[in-house]
Amino acid sequence: MTVEQASGTLVLPISAASKKKQRGAKGPKLAEARTDRILATAVGLFGAGGYQTTTMDEIAEATELNKATVYRYFSSKEDILYALYQRFLDAAVVQTTAIAEGPGTASEKLRAHLKCSFTMLRDYLPYWHVVIKEDSHLSDRRLAVIRRKRKAYAAAVDRIIQEGIAAGEFRTLDPRIIKLAVEGMCNWGFRWFKPGGPMTAEALAEAFAEIALNGIVASPDARSEGDQGSPVATGSSHS
Amino acid sequence: MTVEQASGTLVLPISAASKKKQRGAKGPKLAEARTDRILATAVGLFGAGGYQTTTMDEIAEATELNKATVYRYFSSKEDILYALYQRFLDAAVVQTTAIAEGPGTASEKLRAHLKCSFTMLRDYLPYWHVVIKEDSHLSDRRLAVIRRKRKAYAAAVDRIIQEGIAAGEFRTLDPRIIKLAVEGMCNWGFRWFKPGGPMTAEALAEAFAEIALNGIVASPDARSEGDQGSPVATGSSHS
Repeated sequence: MTVEQASGTLVLPISAASKKKQRGAKGPKLAEARTDRILATAVGLFGAGGYQTTTMDEIAEATELNKATVYRYFSSKEDILYALYQRFLDAAVVQTTAIAEGPGTASEKLRAHLKCSFTMLRDYLPYWHVVIKEDSHLSDRRLAVIRRKRKAYAAAVDRIIQEGIAAGEFRTLDPRIIKLAVEGMCNWGFRWFKPGGPMTAEALAEAFAEIALNGIVASPDARSEGDQGSPVATGSSHS
Repeated sequence: MTVEQASGTLVLPISAASKKKQRGAKGPKLAEARTDRILATAVGLFGAGGYQTTTMDEIAEATELNKATVYRYFSSKEDILYALYQRFLDAAVVQTTAIAEGPGTASEKLRAHLKCSFTMLRDYLPYWHVVIKEDSHLSDRRLAVIRRKRKAYAAAVDRIIQEGIAAGEFRTLDPRIIKLAVEGMCNWGFRWFKPGGPMTAEALAEAFAEIALNGIVASPDARSEGDQGSPVATGSSHS
């Protein structure tokens, strides 16, 4: 598996065509389609109105299933919240670990990691708003599981950065600071990223990787040449 | 005024010693102390439990003022929310505009801007959680005012970046991408920054500015020398 494949193949479908899938579906397929549909509906309601004020009645109504059916798949509202956290973090951990353990230089892996972060923004945007806010509504036992997954994700990012420093490919800056800076560059996208915007997730990831890796200060050479060769160069100002 | 002064002088005290100030205070001073106390209490309650579920009764009780007194300063819960947004954004706009319009190179201004962002995290951390989440609870008229302030803030950051590109000091990357990357590096701190942590806001700002300006890839020279001279260098891994 190449780094590109590792970063591109493992985003799970979350809600697309779940209704269509359900038509004529039976047994495990019906269960999967309904689970997807309940989660896709709930993540939108939790994100818009907050977990606490959303009721199971509202979820059932918006899902167009009766409440008994919803309860067949999730025995409580907290079960739904927990499933959302799991789905989001499992996708992040699987992809990021595959990148960290895969082939390539640390710079290539960091680019792939940023690509993964932006495709996660694109494909899981409603999840970000929930997963950032609602930790306090998970039981201690479940929160411990979520924390382990967050640690596994963080460890994969650490590994990429430490590998780059050990190889002399990255400067010997504090790896925790590098991680916080790079993660922030991407994750703050939950505030501004719009799927279908003028730049694709992949193009944004490439532009951000360029800044993370090489900074924004012009090198003395580039300065004298005007640095016009950049793939994201623009000479014009914007409003 | 130097850039350092511009970035350091204008953080308003938000709650410190507001109770002490109130003892023996009269007239405008009493009003100011009580306003501070109500805002400091409300921002904590809104951040912890959400704006929607917090009541004026709870605010009055936690403030240790009777409800009629709270209503003398704020005629509604939305008034309090609006005042929090104003206080936060006014501090950000005043500081960032002073940096953008002040003396210094674009790199110096960007460092000062990052310092301002981290001192805003340190001094206004509870505000971040409210101001990020509760836009939908402001009236259209008030939200329009808030949006103008956000634009003024963004314009000041744009100005620093465009100045750096125009002077050939920064690479000719897309200035919007530079802004989003730099803002994300700092602003994501609302998730991880702990006032009183092992690094001060100023030290963090300096380390992040170093990454934003120069990136994390070792230059060929530094690579052969091992780049051991960095002020935030560390050779050890961390857990």
